Amino acid sequence: MIDLEAFSLKVKNNLLIILNQKSLPHKEEWLIVNNPKDMISYIKDLKTRGAPLIGVSASLSLAKYSEDGASEKEFKSAANELKESRPTAVNLMINIDRLLNYKKYDPNLIVSEAIDIFNEDVHMCESIAFHGASLIKDGDRILTHCNTGGLATAGSGTALGIIVKPHNQGKKIHVYVDETRPLLQGGRLTTYELQKLGIPYTLICDNMAAFLMAQGKIDKAIVGSDRIALNGDFANKIGTYNIAVLCEFHKIPFYVAAPYTTIDFECPSGKNIPIEERSAKEVKGVQGSFGDVEWAPAESQVYNPSFDITPANLVDSWILDTGSYNYEQIQMGILSDLKNKDN
Amino acid sequence: MIDLEAFSLKVKNNLLIILNQKSLPHKEEWLIVNNPKDMISYIKDLKTRGAPLIGVSASLSLAKYSEDGASEKEFKSAANELKESRPTAVNLMINIDRLLNYKKYDPNLIVSEAIDIFNEDVHMCESIAFHGASLIKDGDRILTHCNTGGLATAGSGTALGIIVKPHNQGKKIHVYVDETRPLLQGGRLTTYELQKLGIPYTLICDNMAAFLMAQGKIDKAIVGSDRIALNGDFANKIGTYNIAVLCEFHKIPFYVAAPYTTIDFECPSGKNIPIEERSAKEVKGVQGSFGDVEWAPAESQVYNPSFDITPANLVDSWILDTGSYNYEQIQMGILSDLKNKDN
Repeated sequence: MIDLEAFSLKVKNNLLIILNQKSLPHKEEWLIVNNPKDMISYIKDLKTRGAPLIGVSASLSLAKYSEDGASEKEFKSAANELKESRPTAVNLMINIDRLLNYKKYDPNLIVSEAIDIFNEDVHMCESIAFHGASLIKDGDRILTHCNTGGLATAGSGTALGIIVKPHNQGKKIHVYVDETRPLLQGGRLTTYELQKLGIPYTLICDNMAAFLMAQGKIDKAIVGSDRIALNGDFANKIGTYNIAVLCEFHKIPFYVAAPYTTIDFECPSGKNIPIEERSAKEVKGVQGSFGDVEWAPAESQVYNPSFDITPANLVDSWILDTGSYNYEQIQMGILSDLKNKDN
Repeated sequence: MIDLEAFSLKVKNNLLIILNQKSLPHKEEWLIVNNPKDMISYIKDLKTRGAPLIGVSASLSLAKYSEDGASEKEFKSAANELKESRPTAVNLMINIDRLLNYKKYDPNLIVSEAIDIFNEDVHMCESIAFHGASLIKDGDRILTHCNTGGLATAGSGTALGIIVKPHNQGKKIHVYVDETRPLLQGGRLTTYELQKLGIPYTLICDNMAAFLMAQGKIDKAIVGSDRIALNGDFANKIGTYNIAVLCEFHKIPFYVAAPYTTIDFECPSGKNIPIEERSAKEVKGVQGSFGDVEWAPAESQVYNPSFDITPANLVDSWILDTGSYNYEQIQMGILSDLKNKDN
């Protein structure tokens, strides 16, 4: 397989390696993916994360397996096991189905398709950054939430990609990073990524953004999305809706950035998006390679939704790889039109 | 000295003991205060906290020292050392000055004054709860922030006292507890206190309150205050302003509860309240008797204000021990009038 290089994924001298996200930011450990079995265990252990990145990594591991001499039967069996490694990751299913969609089993064609998947993800990030570029000004101080960069995609990221691009063009950008309780993707991963990229940032607790806004220290907020309904409502990491309300109150532009594939064409509005609740343990303390502590009483009752829903009327722009859309366009049904164009 | 009993402070069989707040909620350890030196070390180690509670505890330790036979010289020297143990605690100064304000050194009068200080704090909490009571309805689901209960006062607390009273009267109350990053006073102490009192509660991360409000699950929010300006703006634990904005957006009543002594008559508005910034370490991880972990990159730049300022126009009622006041009364200058009445 040809060499490929991304922030947290590489193919080099025919070796597929991924950055172990569980040991970040304190230890940079690259793990060899010898075969799909390795990949499955890394996905299950959360050593790799981010829906686009998981889809790309899994596809490459499967293609390499085929190239290394797996029989068609072995290939199909590994493909099915990989699909089951994270049942909620829609990208993973779609990407692996592409590799399975052949007339005759041919490792060369499978490798070529996997490389296409990688390149398309890089291109998706570039397109999002391109469409978002006009919204970012020299000197902007931008609030972001969770991790939406090169640790979640094969490219520069979605929301974070929009921030990285103007920095690389020489614009002065400062990022305020929400730590993103309970899983701390901001405090642990976005800080690491910005540090590596040399982009100035300030880490804050999630409850501090409001006070920064009151002091006029935040010019705009950009967040990612896990699912966008046809009316523009969207689901994203818990805490996103909080930011949207704060931006509305302080008259600060609020943008959501995501790939076109995030639109759920079966979903008319945010009311139809189910919200998964996660383990109480995450809120009672923190857990990670950095340690595991619990400060709340063992008996505490806890509410721990993974996501929240931000209604469309709080959003200034939806920045997709297909273009950037404003509230009026969303209300006119542009997201449904994208689907019709697609068909 | 007579027996006294509070949630986190007791005098029993002539022994002064305090609950070690540093080991909560996992271990209930009562520490003997043998003399003012012990008290000073407990204050400095944060084993006791909450401005009213510190003032009361320090006064009792000093009175007991006098009763135990300290000479006037020893008494005065200990009093001055105690005052310096937490220079920002205004209550501590005021309370100890009351014990020093005698014509002739008389241990009996000093003990009597210290017991008055204890009883006044209990009464202050009861008055706040009394004035707040009419605002709380059967079935209310109330959001609170930080710790403002029996671990911060000699009584039932300020904001938390308003919640405890209707529960004790048989009203059905449910409390949503903000964990209150970075120091986790909500997650660690308010949860413990509500658990002990048998009041139903749900612990949440600070960034989850907005989503609860959007779902109609929060009826009102009550917070404490560290300093109230004459125009009604007030300082409180970081994250308070966030809640005030969320309440405004969701049309949820937002109340602040505090003793009259919290009013700073030298301070015309919130703009005049200085905001202390604390150590970056607190935001990069968590530290306590439960453990010490750090998840952010060591190089991270951090913003860590202790307090934020909530402007008066976001507040529905100021609940003091002297009465409950609405925005119109505050605008008419009722806080200044309280001072004039006092003189």
